[in-house]
Amino acid sequence: MPNKPLSKGKERFIEELGERGLIETIVNKFNANANRRIVTVGAGEDDCAVIDVDNARGGRKYLVVTTDTVQESTHLPKGISPFQIGWTAAAVNLSDIAAMGAHPFAFTVAMGVPARTKSAFVEEVVEGIEKCASAYHTAVVGGDITRSKEVILTGTCFGFADRPVRRAGAGIGNLVCVTGSLGDAALGINLIKRDTEIKVPVKVEEIAKKALFQPMPRIREGIALADSGLVTSMIDISDGLALSLAELAKSSGVGFEIYEDKVPVLSKELRNAEAFDLSSIGVERRALAFYGGDYELLFTIDASGLERISEMINMSVIGKVTPHEAGIYFKKGKEKEKMELTGYQHF
Amino acid sequence: MPNKPLSKGKERFIEELGERGLIETIVNKFNANANRRIVTVGAGEDDCAVIDVDNARGGRKYLVVTTDTVQESTHLPKGISPFQIGWTAAAVNLSDIAAMGAHPFAFTVAMGVPARTKSAFVEEVVEGIEKCASAYHTAVVGGDITRSKEVILTGTCFGFADRPVRRAGAGIGNLVCVTGSLGDAALGINLIKRDTEIKVPVKVEEIAKKALFQPMPRIREGIALADSGLVTSMIDISDGLALSLAELAKSSGVGFEIYEDKVPVLSKELRNAEAFDLSSIGVERRALAFYGGDYELLFTIDASGLERISEMINMSVIGKVTPHEAGIYFKKGKEKEKMELTGYQHF
Repeated sequence: MPNKPLSKGKERFIEELGERGLIETIVNKFNANANRRIVTVGAGEDDCAVIDVDNARGGRKYLVVTTDTVQESTHLPKGISPFQIGWTAAAVNLSDIAAMGAHPFAFTVAMGVPARTKSAFVEEVVEGIEKCASAYHTAVVGGDITRSKEVILTGTCFGFADRPVRRAGAGIGNLVCVTGSLGDAALGINLIKRDTEIKVPVKVEEIAKKALFQPMPRIREGIALADSGLVTSMIDISDGLALSLAELAKSSGVGFEIYEDKVPVLSKELRNAEAFDLSSIGVERRALAFYGGDYELLFTIDASGLERISEMINMSVIGKVTPHEAGIYFKKGKEKEKMELTGYQHF
Repeated sequence: MPNKPLSKGKERFIEELGERGLIETIVNKFNANANRRIVTVGAGEDDCAVIDVDNARGGRKYLVVTTDTVQESTHLPKGISPFQIGWTAAAVNLSDIAAMGAHPFAFTVAMGVPARTKSAFVEEVVEGIEKCASAYHTAVVGGDITRSKEVILTGTCFGFADRPVRRAGAGIGNLVCVTGSLGDAALGINLIKRDTEIKVPVKVEEIAKKALFQPMPRIREGIALADSGLVTSMIDISDGLALSLAELAKSSGVGFEIYEDKVPVLSKELRNAEAFDLSSIGVERRALAFYGGDYELLFTIDASGLERISEMINMSVIGKVTPHEAGIYFKKGKEKEKMELTGYQHF
C-alpha cells in the first residue's frame, strides 16, 4: 500500500487507505515523543518494540503489567469525542498502574474499528491515546489496527516499581482513605442518561462530563503513597467505591466501617462552579459516592502516617479497618447500616 | 457476584455468571503453571501483574513487546475450534517475539465475547491460550474480559533479548532464508473456501487445517538465529512471504532475487501423507508459497554462516540480497520476473 498521509479535509474512510498506510500515520504520531534512550525500537518499526530495561527501570526491581479494554457497546458513554475515547483507553490502564504505586513507562494499544470509519476519527483517537500517555511520561510503543464490528480499544500498560502496593495488607485499625473526590463522573452519567429532564448549570455539566469523558489517573499520588512506605493496601476505584471496598476487604481479609459524610462527594471545582441541589435533579449523594465509576485511589494506612500523607497528596479519611467478620457497613454515631456491594459489571 | 465454578455440563451463558465469577475461573487456569520466582503477582490477583525483572530477564538487556489481535469477522477461519482460537491469539504474538530472536516470558490477553456465549466456549478459548503460552514457557499474567459484538482477542507478549534481530540489516550478497516450509496453512484456507469442490485425501486435509488453525511459532529457531550472531535481518511471515520480503527489503534498503523452486512448499509431513496433485485441485504452487499466511521466519545471513545455521535449524536458502534498485524478483536461470507484492491485509 502507498503511504499517503491522512487528510482530514478529504474525510476518507480507512478502508480506502489500506492497513499499512494507516499504521504508518499512527506510528509516526506515537514515536514523535518517545525517549530513545528507553525506546530503542518504537511502535511499528519492527515485529516488536524494544526497550532498554536498565534505562527504563531506574533501578526498580519489579515490572508491573495490566491490560484493559474499552469499547463502544459497553464502555463508551454517549457524547464522548474520538479524542476522549483514545484518552480513556490509556487512562483506564494507567489507573491500574497508579493503584500499584508504579512508574508507568510504556503502553501498547490494539484498535478495532469498523471499515467505514473516517480516517479523521482514527487520527483523533490516536491523538487522545498519545496525549494521555505522554501526560504521564509513558511512551506508546506498540499498536495494532484491525477491522471490527464496533470501536474497541485494548491497552496494555507497563510500569516499574520497587514496592508494588497490593490489595492485600490492610490491618485492623488502619485508616481507610481516598484520593481526590468522588462522584463527578457519576453525575456526568446521570446527566447523559436523562439529559432532557435534568437541568443543571452549564458549567456543572461541563465539569461532570469532562470527569466522565477524560479521567485523570492518579499516577503521582500512587507513587507518593508507595514511596512513603506508609500505605498498607491500595486499589483504584474504577467500578465504584462500594465494589472497590469489597475487593480490598476480600483481598486483605478485613471489614470496613465507613463514615458516609466523610466521603468527599463532587470536586471542589464543580461545587464552586455554581450552587445547585443534587436532590432537585433526582440524584442521591450516596449513589454518586459509592456506585459510580471514578479513577481515584482507595487505600489504607497506619494512623501514625496520616499527617505525612495528607501533606503529600489531596486525600480524605473515610473510615476504619475492622475485623473481617464485621463486614462492610456505614457508621453514623452508634448506628450501623450494611453497605450494598454493587457497582458496574460488564456482564 | 458469587464465584460459582463454571460447569460445562450445564452449558451456561456467561451473562448469567457475572464478570467477576468468570474472571475467577479464568485466572485460576492461567496461574496454575506460573513460575512464582518470576510472576510474583499473577493474572487477576491485583490491579496489575508483578514480575521480578532480574529473575525473568536472565541477564538479558532488552525487553521486547508486541501486541496483536485476532477476531471473528476478519481473522478466524471457518471451522476453527474455541481451543484453536485461543491458541492462535497466543501464537500470533509469540511469532513476533520469535522474529526478534527473543525469549518470551509473559503474555496478557483481553477477550471480548458476545453476552450469549456459552461458558464452555470461553473455558476452551482460555485453555487454548494457556496451552500455547506454556508450550513456549510463557506465563499468562493478565486477562480482561468484556462483552462485545463478536469474539475478539487482543494479546500482548513480552520477551527478553540481548541482541534483538531487526528487519533492517540485510547486506548485499547475503543469503535469503526461511525456516521450515510454507503453504500448509494456505492450502488449509483453500480447502475451507471451496470445500464442496475440492477433494483431497483426509490426512492431507487434517494436516493443512491443523497448520491453519494451530500455528507453531518458531521461538526456538528465532533464539538460535539471534544467538548465532550470524543473522543480519529477520521478520515473521504472517501475511505471506511476498509481503514479508517487501517489508524486509524496505527496512534494509535492499532488493531480493528469489529462486522460486528453492522455496520449500508444503511440509514433509503433508507431502508424505499421501501423493496428490496440487494442480488437480486448482491450487497454484506459487500462491501457496508466496501469498498465504504462515508462521515461519524469513531471515538473511552472511553466506559464511550457512553451514553452522543449517546444522542448528531446519531451513532453506531461497534467494540472495541484491541492491535496492533491483527490486524483488523471481530468478530462474537468466530469466527475471518481477514479484507481485500482495498478501493478506485487514482493510
